[in-house]
Amino acid sequence: MGNIFSDRISDVPRSFIREILKVAVDESIISFAGGLPNRDLFPLQEIKAATAKLLEESGKDVLQYSSSEGYPALREWISGRYAAKGMEVSPDNILITSGSQQGLDLLGKTILNEGDSVVIEEPGYLGAIQAFSIYRSTFHPIPLHPDGIDLQLLEQAVSRNTIKLMYCVPNFQNPSGISYSEENRRGVADILQGRKTLLVEDDPYGELRFLGQDKPSFHTLMPDNTVLLGSFSKIVIPSFRIGWIAARPEIMEKLVIAKQASDLHTNYFGQRIILQYLRDNDIDGHIRTIREAYGRQRAAMVSAIREHFPPDTYYTEPEGGMFLWITLPEGMSAMELFRRAIEQKVAFVPGDPFYVNKKDVNTLRLNYSSVDEETIRIGIKRLGDVLKGMPR
Amino acid sequence: MGNIFSDRISDVPRSFIREILKVAVDESIISFAGGLPNRDLFPLQEIKAATAKLLEESGKDVLQYSSSEGYPALREWISGRYAAKGMEVSPDNILITSGSQQGLDLLGKTILNEGDSVVIEEPGYLGAIQAFSIYRSTFHPIPLHPDGIDLQLLEQAVSRNTIKLMYCVPNFQNPSGISYSEENRRGVADILQGRKTLLVEDDPYGELRFLGQDKPSFHTLMPDNTVLLGSFSKIVIPSFRIGWIAARPEIMEKLVIAKQASDLHTNYFGQRIILQYLRDNDIDGHIRTIREAYGRQRAAMVSAIREHFPPDTYYTEPEGGMFLWITLPEGMSAMELFRRAIEQKVAFVPGDPFYVNKKDVNTLRLNYSSVDEETIRIGIKRLGDVLKGMPR
Repeated sequence: MGNIFSDRISDVPRSFIREILKVAVDESIISFAGGLPNRDLFPLQEIKAATAKLLEESGKDVLQYSSSEGYPALREWISGRYAAKGMEVSPDNILITSGSQQGLDLLGKTILNEGDSVVIEEPGYLGAIQAFSIYRSTFHPIPLHPDGIDLQLLEQAVSRNTIKLMYCVPNFQNPSGISYSEENRRGVADILQGRKTLLVEDDPYGELRFLGQDKPSFHTLMPDNTVLLGSFSKIVIPSFRIGWIAARPEIMEKLVIAKQASDLHTNYFGQRIILQYLRDNDIDGHIRTIREAYGRQRAAMVSAIREHFPPDTYYTEPEGGMFLWITLPEGMSAMELFRRAIEQKVAFVPGDPFYVNKKDVNTLRLNYSSVDEETIRIGIKRLGDVLKGMPR
Repeated sequence: MGNIFSDRISDVPRSFIREILKVAVDESIISFAGGLPNRDLFPLQEIKAATAKLLEESGKDVLQYSSSEGYPALREWISGRYAAKGMEVSPDNILITSGSQQGLDLLGKTILNEGDSVVIEEPGYLGAIQAFSIYRSTFHPIPLHPDGIDLQLLEQAVSRNTIKLMYCVPNFQNPSGISYSEENRRGVADILQGRKTLLVEDDPYGELRFLGQDKPSFHTLMPDNTVLLGSFSKIVIPSFRIGWIAARPEIMEKLVIAKQASDLHTNYFGQRIILQYLRDNDIDGHIRTIREAYGRQRAAMVSAIREHFPPDTYYTEPEGGMFLWITLPEGMSAMELFRRAIEQKVAFVPGDPFYVNKKDVNTLRLNYSSVDEETIRIGIKRLGDVLKGMPR
């Protein structure tokens, strides 16, 4: 048939993580490769109760088509949650999306022309690289340091190029676990001051802080130029695929058109169940439980790394979220480590897919949210043993 | 801020129907404008039972992230349904989508470069016009006749242009209610024979036939070049947003990449509930109930039109589905009729948004699925009275 495909789809990297997860399905493998929340903490009984109550009280109302913007009362709840943090985000400026991944797709659709410049973090969130690749943007990766993004290189990038969009995950970034300090955030806002760059603050993990203090959102520092992405996947449940975008009205208008062309509206039954759950339960108490568990799991991982990894292995020390980032000794290949680790029944994601233009790197991502503390200790020891046998 | 938007989003028509539906929310208005299934027929008790059983038996399994392709057992069910109609569609070639609207978006993403030629029906499905506009395709609208698409003009279009994709709704089309005869389908297949054109058969209403005999799918006539779109929205419930695409493996591979970049996967909880519902209930019996109701509603509408509309008004006589198409006397404006009708508390969709390059047309869409027979009679009489006062 010849090539019938669009040029854009040829530009999108194949999901390396999908391939890796296929390797890691073997039940005897301890997997730090996934990006899953801890399923033991899913509020099953509460979701059951919310669903039954909803169907009892609202019946067929929750089964019909609904509006592209999303359920108004859920948008109000989200607005109220922002207000409690001192952020002013009108419900009218919130669009419910099919997970925050769809937020990325809708932003690409409405903002990016082919070749438009996009700043991303290095290492960067794979889902954003995929979503923006579809719209054939030109990536300008800016390295992350322990306290945030490299301000000098960011300044350089925005002064030499017209950056249309800057994408970042300032809290407990995926894949690195790094958070931007308040100073770093102010530095970014200063650099973008007076420019047309739209800053996309993706914040799926922001509520999952187990150490340190919350830092100001970019929406507080530069409200007009910041688009917020949020999600219920990490604080309630992921299978419903319910997230949101908050953006100023002129952008919202375009996002709604794109939303309608993309899937009409997000799963309405799920939106209603989530809101019922939020109304009938103590979400802050539930989030506290998740935070404490992830804090313990992260502590178990860090202490096992200290015990079992070679001393010249660098690791991040996240204050929240689900991931930790390893930098292996110079010249050591994370891909080679992966091949050997799989044989020893332990998996992770080599750093390669998180870079737009680097290969065979010496970095890797470890997930601690979906594995219990005892298993973390066993898995990290196994990985440490493999590491000790690696050629230098 | 200047224009920060992508060129593609500027090309997408604003949804006229959304604007119209806003006008029509007034409860005293009888609305034939929507495209909603009859909510009285939603299987509420069965969905309640399926949901409770699922949460009881599968618990947290249904709350976690899932695969981009969709729930394997649901894909098998769909494959089995095709098999019962004599169509061979492997579960591996089925991708679960967030409504069949997302199928259109994913096809646009993976197939269409800017300027690529797309054949659509005239009048055409608005959601497809919107979805493909995003990818800046060039539309070649081909008129519909009572027995299908205009074969002579189709032949001309494909011989003069490289048509990458032909989009059609051969059963009870939205907006016209027209179905392609078997002869017309064979004609289309003959014309496309040996060409690279991909035919997209969108079939959300195919099961809702209340008159006449089923016609062969294009998948039977030209399996390699046909992509199928299906949906549970019209036969079970719409609020879950669950549909599917069936395509040959090389296309599936690209669609899955696009799906992952678009929203990771479709609402998994909903996929599981739908399958539980399908397993525990007589879906054929349920579909029969819907068919019979829509058959009665369509009959009520046609007989009221005969009684109350001017004799030189032409109307289609659908054998299934949810819509009927009116052609007003030459020179009469459906937009003007709409303005006057709203004052008399009756709404419909003027034809304009269903054309890519015509304005102020004399056609309009009437929906009969969401309005009961008695209300249909009252509404059509009102509309007939307005029609009689229209300038000629």
